[in-house]
Amino acid sequence: LPIRDGRLKGRINESFSRINASIRFDKRLYREDIEGSIAYAKALFKNKVLDKEELEEIIDGLKNIEKEIEGGTFVFLEEDEDIHMNIERGLYEKIGETAYKLHTGRSRNEQIVLDERLFLIKTTEELKKTLLMLFKSIVRRAKENCETVIPSYTHFRQAQPVSLAHHFLAYHAALQRDMERFEDFLRRLKVMPLGSGAVAGSSIGIDREFLRKELGFEGVSGNSIDAVSTRDFIIEFEFICSAIMGTLSRIAEDLILFSSDEIGYIGIPDELATTSSLMPQKKNPDSLELIRGKTGRVFGNLISIMTVMKGIPYSYNRDLQEDKEGLFDTVDSTLAAIEVMKEVFSGLSVNKKRIKTVIEGSKDYLFATDLSDYLVKKGVFFRKAHRIIGSIVQYAIKEEKSLSQLTIEEYKEFDQNFEKDVYDVFNYTRSVNLHDVPGGTALRRIREEINRIEKQLR
Amino acid sequence: LPIRDGRLKGRINESFSRINASIRFDKRLYREDIEGSIAYAKALFKNKVLDKEELEEIIDGLKNIEKEIEGGTFVFLEEDEDIHMNIERGLYEKIGETAYKLHTGRSRNEQIVLDERLFLIKTTEELKKTLLMLFKSIVRRAKENCETVIPSYTHFRQAQPVSLAHHFLAYHAALQRDMERFEDFLRRLKVMPLGSGAVAGSSIGIDREFLRKELGFEGVSGNSIDAVSTRDFIIEFEFICSAIMGTLSRIAEDLILFSSDEIGYIGIPDELATTSSLMPQKKNPDSLELIRGKTGRVFGNLISIMTVMKGIPYSYNRDLQEDKEGLFDTVDSTLAAIEVMKEVFSGLSVNKKRIKTVIEGSKDYLFATDLSDYLVKKGVFFRKAHRIIGSIVQYAIKEEKSLSQLTIEEYKEFDQNFEKDVYDVFNYTRSVNLHDVPGGTALRRIREEINRIEKQLR
Amino acid sequence: LPIRDGRLKGRINESFSRINASIRFDKRLYREDIEGSIAYAKALFKNKVLDKEELEEIIDGLKNIEKEIEGGTFVFLEEDEDIHMNIERGLYEKIGETAYKLHTGRSRNEQIVLDERLFLIKTTEELKKTLLMLFKSIVRRAKENCETVIPSYTHFRQAQPVSLAHHFLAYHAALQRDMERFEDFLRRLKVMPLGSGAVAGSSIGIDREFLRKELGFEGVSGNSIDAVSTRDFIIEFEFICSAIMGTLSRIAEDLILFSSDEIGYIGIPDELATTSSLMPQKKNPDSLELIRGKTGRVFGNLISIMTVMKGIPYSYNRDLQEDKEGLFDTVDSTLAAIEVMKEVFSGLSVNKKRIKTVIEGSKDYLFATDLSDYLVKKGVFFRKAHRIIGSIVQYAIKEEKSLSQLTIEEYKEFDQNFEKDVYDVFNYTRSVNLHDVPGGTALRRIREEINRIEKQLR
Amino acid sequence: LPIRDGRLKGRINESFSRINASIRFDKRLYREDIEGSIAYAKALFKNKVLDKEELEEIIDGLKNIEKEIEGGTFVFLEEDEDIHMNIERGLYEKIGETAYKLHTGRSRNEQIVLDERLFLIKTTEELKKTLLMLFKSIVRRAKENCETVIPSYTHFRQAQPVSLAHHFLAYHAALQRDMERFEDFLRRLKVMPLGSGAVAGSSIGIDREFLRKELGFEGVSGNSIDAVSTRDFIIEFEFICSAIMGTLSRIAEDLILFSSDEIGYIGIPDELATTSSLMPQKKNPDSLELIRGKTGRVFGNLISIMTVMKGIPYSYNRDLQEDKEGLFDTVDSTLAAIEVMKEVFSGLSVNKKRIKTVIEGSKDYLFATDLSDYLVKKGVFFRKAHRIIGSIVQYAIKEEKSLSQLTIEEYKEFDQNFEKDVYDVFNYTRSVNLHDVPGGTALRRIREEINRIEKQLR
Repeated sequence: LPIRDGRLKGRINESFSRINASIRFDKRLYREDIEGSIAYAKALFKNKVLDKEELEEIIDGLKNIEKEIEGGTFVFLEEDEDIHMNIERGLYEKIGETAYKLHTGRSRNEQIVLDERLFLIKTTEELKKTLLMLFKSIVRRAKENCETVIPSYTHFRQAQPVSLAHHFLAYHAALQRDMERFEDFLRRLKVMPLGSGAVAGSSIGIDREFLRKELGFEGVSGNSIDAVSTRDFIIEFEFICSAIMGTLSRIAEDLILFSSDEIGYIGIPDELATTSSLMPQKKNPDSLELIRGKTGRVFGNLISIMTVMKGIPYSYNRDLQEDKEGLFDTVDSTLAAIEVMKEVFSGLSVNKKRIKTVIEGSKDYLFATDLSDYLVKKGVFFRKAHRIIGSIVQYAIKEEKSLSQLTIEEYKEFDQNFEKDVYDVFNYTRSVNLHDVPGGTALRRIREEINRIEKQLR
Repeated sequence: LPIRDGRLKGRINESFSRINASIRFDKRLYREDIEGSIAYAKALFKNKVLDKEELEEIIDGLKNIEKEIEGGTFVFLEEDEDIHMNIERGLYEKIGETAYKLHTGRSRNEQIVLDERLFLIKTTEELKKTLLMLFKSIVRRAKENCETVIPSYTHFRQAQPVSLAHHFLAYHAALQRDMERFEDFLRRLKVMPLGSGAVAGSSIGIDREFLRKELGFEGVSGNSIDAVSTRDFIIEFEFICSAIMGTLSRIAEDLILFSSDEIGYIGIPDELATTSSLMPQKKNPDSLELIRGKTGRVFGNLISIMTVMKGIPYSYNRDLQEDKEGLFDTVDSTLAAIEVMKEVFSGLSVNKKRIKTVIEGSKDYLFATDLSDYLVKKGVFFRKAHRIIGSIVQYAIKEEKSLSQLTIEEYKEFDQNFEKDVYDVFNYTRSVNLHDVPGGTALRRIREEINRIEKQLR
Repeated sequence: LPIRDGRLKGRINESFSRINASIRFDKRLYREDIEGSIAYAKALFKNKVLDKEELEEIIDGLKNIEKEIEGGTFVFLEEDEDIHMNIERGLYEKIGETAYKLHTGRSRNEQIVLDERLFLIKTTEELKKTLLMLFKSIVRRAKENCETVIPSYTHFRQAQPVSLAHHFLAYHAALQRDMERFEDFLRRLKVMPLGSGAVAGSSIGIDREFLRKELGFEGVSGNSIDAVSTRDFIIEFEFICSAIMGTLSRIAEDLILFSSDEIGYIGIPDELATTSSLMPQKKNPDSLELIRGKTGRVFGNLISIMTVMKGIPYSYNRDLQEDKEGLFDTVDSTLAAIEVMKEVFSGLSVNKKRIKTVIEGSKDYLFATDLSDYLVKKGVFFRKAHRIIGSIVQYAIKEEKSLSQLTIEEYKEFDQNFEKDVYDVFNYTRSVNLHDVPGGTALRRIREEINRIEKQLR
Repeated sequence: LPIRDGRLKGRINESFSRINASIRFDKRLYREDIEGSIAYAKALFKNKVLDKEELEEIIDGLKNIEKEIEGGTFVFLEEDEDIHMNIERGLYEKIGETAYKLHTGRSRNEQIVLDERLFLIKTTEELKKTLLMLFKSIVRRAKENCETVIPSYTHFRQAQPVSLAHHFLAYHAALQRDMERFEDFLRRLKVMPLGSGAVAGSSIGIDREFLRKELGFEGVSGNSIDAVSTRDFIIEFEFICSAIMGTLSRIAEDLILFSSDEIGYIGIPDELATTSSLMPQKKNPDSLELIRGKTGRVFGNLISIMTVMKGIPYSYNRDLQEDKEGLFDTVDSTLAAIEVMKEVFSGLSVNKKRIKTVIEGSKDYLFATDLSDYLVKKGVFFRKAHRIIGSIVQYAIKEEKSLSQLTIEEYKEFDQNFEKDVYDVFNYTRSVNLHDVPGGTALRRIREEINRIEKQLR
């Protein structure tokens, strides 16, 4: 029974119909829709709207539809608009008029948010699992490279020596917070909206607590108007995905730079690279570029749903249909980006030889802060020490010398506190181990941190 | 010949492959890709890379592929990554090794921007045509409603009487500027990039001027690095669509309000409305809500491509692949929104009876500015007149009287300049016609404006 | 000692200097900067970098600077770039060279994130307090209007009768989730970054646990590179503010509509309205429009910082300076919006008389769902009942009758199940109380919900 | 005369007042406001609302106010809300009640858009001038570096040799399109809105054509409702600034990379760099990072105003006040970014020696496409040639040889077409000059392009 026909005259306008129908994309929610309808049928039985036989007919019918959809034999019709009405029509074709009872006291306004919440619960769990796999790859790489010292970068200029492990663990630290955000989000997500009716709450006294248990939620929504009006659970989800993608875009940038012809600390495996259709020598890090690029669409989807919701009055408005395509795209893009990043960490090689060459070619400027610390320990006030070393570096550049090539006489001309032991400063392991605080790059601190994370990952 | 195989070892990683392949969406550009390849083959012939026979083979082959794609029989392979390589492979299957010559001196970097520019030229023309149809619907409605006086609104509060035609023409005025933006954009769009090679320019001296004419462009790009690096033509296009959607979202809001139970100036035809699955009395303006909602995704797509391009180095980077899905979505959403809005204007009814009731129920507050003008003409300084009328309105509200119900004595208590002729003020036609400047709501001005637009539309 | 002078030649370029200096806006963090420096000085004392006397000098100096800043007598210099260097210079002017020791082993990279985190802890608490005040205003209004029945709206069309209290509580339900988001965020925010150095961790073994306690944090950051690189705490904060503003924009829209000339359910107090400079009768809801408008800037600031962070390499980059102005603007805009919204709820009046008129003028369509329920209880299948009532409404519109004006004969023509008791349906209190589930609009459910919230608010 | 007082009771609410008043930021428009008021006074004189003496009083008064504002002696009051009312009050203090006539028939709704349009006309011209200066710096650098050959990059991997001039001219090509966008925009901007009244058009028959000439506009607005409702001129302006910033962010990225420790093609002058507060050796490209970072806020401001306008009904709504702060910020940020970028190009040094070292260290892979061309000229089909060279590169990497170090025997093992002349390929000047098409990197093409641009710049 097309629901239009009672109230409205004539057929739906064709141009309008094309944007009105959502079945093209919301059919992705078929499993959740059926799961919700089965639970609702059970509640209707508890409520005596359905008898035992009708309940079984409905459940059987719905399960058959699920199988048909999965087998690719179910026929979706655009004139049935959305996943809810397609399944209702399919059920009618299977079991006849009993199907017309299933929607008793239920509105699509509540049905769609139920489907979306069920979908997001599963999806969030999947994202968490994929993140975990990425974490394991990162930590494995970190473990292998505790003693690989690279220049750290600030302003994309070589700064101080750090362990490559420390650098990799920075990626984990950032993404770990997104994992926690997902946890927090799940608490808000697992609130069951069914029983809200179109807007005012169910008028047939449906047992919401029963539905909650049946569908595995942790709470029921406390206000029916809010329940059908809000999409903040979609916005929060898309925000967390945006946070992840923002971090992945920075990791991708790092790895593109680190694997470049000019830096070359790491190598991307061939199976994650492409070549050019014109330039046969090229080995391009497309996997990383695509991750970086996908950041754009995930940000865009967030803005999209925020814009949709801005300034529309309560309660449900049809604008809300625009929540789904962007959501699905964000799910797919974020999952793909995490997965590919995991492959990158699994497959990358660390060019220790190259790293050594680079670091030795750096003219010891990486030790400038250590030199400054040296002076401070000799009693020079920090700001003065900073200034003295700055001048020494300027001098060394002019003289085209590395810092360890300067003679003690040259040092003494800048400050009398310099002594022979200044040359002890130019030692990477020593330098790294100087940063010996929780969160610092000293080897024992990194090992502690790795142990802590590994425990957490188990 | 898979282009990977020479340079890279092993097969492509599976997760990466899923985001690497773009054929799923870029096949939409098949027509442009073939058009570009035919022109390029002709240029290769001019250049003696191809002989006459080879040229004909290639052109025939490409035309056959076009037919197969349109007939649904062409097989797209994900392992061939994109539309360019799929067509090249298809051509090889048809004509053998000659197909391997077609890419001589050409790069996918230039090929994709050629395809996109050709696609956007057609699409922009289609959008312009659709906008024109909307303009005609709006103007027709305006013409029918020159003498229908409604309250204008500022701050969504009734302000001054205006012609409904004047209100509708404001929509046209805004959208007309977007039409001009499309014109300006086309000038920048019609610049031919082919011959830019991968980045440094064609190395086989291809005749770019010949290609330009062949493909109907107005100029050729002046810098090969820029030609393959920029996506500003996509960004500008998406911006103009965003501007259109921003305006449509406001028109949609207006019409949702004007067709509401409480206002009811206009009626939405049944074929552009839906009902509720639970509440059988509902007639909902979903067509307008969906237009308003689609604004979100078009804005989101703009931000998406802007984010993609932000801060990536020159020249081509693979991030740029992310330009297409958002673009296609913007094209489809904007076209649909304009079309449906055109249907709305074609189908809407104006409830003149209802408008009259509302306006008569408004207690004449709509004439307050006219009353103030009345006092100014009697010599009261404007700011004082404004204040006096403000107090009179406050008084009338307290007394629960309309402004025309106040006695002349009551008026005189506020200001001695009031005389019997004050009651002439309370006349809608007079009021509207007072605003007799170019761009004002006086009937003769509106008619002039309609004439001007109608000439333009022809 | 200008830190440039050692390393770099010449003066800073003037154009660059204008964007380089951040003191114009980051001086807002002076209190946090001083708080952090005092704690750091104590740690330096523990570390024997400072002796007792030096420590006291520094603390006294810093406290004096704080007083001077608050008294407006401290001179900020643009050539000192930022709040950190301005205070360091101020300290030198007060206590001489001892000031040069304060920065020992500390970097501005860690200092700025410490300041920002301290600032956000305070700010988030202030926002929570302000939200609480808004909640109290909303609940007070709800309590007064439990029995005020208005039409609920879907698609901005009258839907079913609901209690105005229920409608107001939907606002609370949405904003309550943002309150929880702030709670979750605070856990992530209260992580102490000091001791991270420029990037590699403190090289002077500063006691980070001591600093944590001193500054009231809950944990210390686990990776120094991450600590100076991330701004996700700013992004998450701006996201939550965006979520709040998104909801406020909808509430504002509701109240603008509800207080309009045509609807008039509520009145905005004069002190929250403005009039027009030209139209003296106007009373405009500017307070609500500005709240709705400010949504734009808060969204914009979120996008701004997300864009800044996109695709920049690790670790600190100067781009990060762009995090502050948007953040401050978001803080101010959101606080102002919540405060003004609280004033609106405190001051608004509910026009019960007007509501009654509107609801009685609605031709009983609001009861259509109840009529459908009536038939279902008589045994009609839900979808059929829905269709029958749809047709009855269509008939009533054509006949220009309200639903309760139709005779029993007319009803029976549509379905034989109708009996005399159908007229019992047309009763607002009965209708509202039918929706008797948790979260529904039945009066006892609303009262329960108000009790629950009031307990929570205490 | 506070305009509130007639119509509204009581004082304005304090919280509301803080967001209601815009004088804090809109005072930046004082010059335009006064310019507009002088023109309006003249029109009122033409219209006989003012006599000669009054006109002179008003003009004198306004000019005095302008001087006072510029001298810093004018007192802005927050209770006068905005720039319009502050100046009106100032005028009253100077010339008494005549001031009350100036607003006759004029609304702040039209006044603000007049001010904004006048402001943007000047600002756009200033931006164009600044862009021109940047163009000159770029072209100067290009001219000096026609024969400096660097690797071009795709996917941030070395691609083919190009002239550094060609690379720099790509920046000009992109920004030149934004210059054209400004031109197109100015046509739409120079439309005079005054005479639109609050919404319905002037009711005192003001001479709009006279105002247009007086204020230097090219046309008058054709619909009063549109004139006060639209902000598309602000949105378009912010879009063009976003396009500029997007391009500048990429140039900044390029230059940060090119000036890095590892690449070093260019040097940033000390006066555009900073050092670290902790690491005394650092010379950081903060000027470029800040340009890149400012992209975020300019994008954010665009989204902000687009969000503000989304879905608000016609005509003027107070939300529109939120257009100004973002606009001003975009103006300042974009101007500063262009200026600093101009300084960068003026001051940067090109390290030709370093470039030579890099390019010679690149193992001749940059010539791979030329090698492929070599084979094609010998009759090998393009796709096959591509594959052969790919294999040769793979082989050379394994053997750790450069391409020119491979013997002719080794070449012949891959393809018999190789002959002794293959070694002619390894020549940078020859390679660059092979790309001899319009827009290509051949030296004569670049020189032609420089000539063309220089003519245009004159």
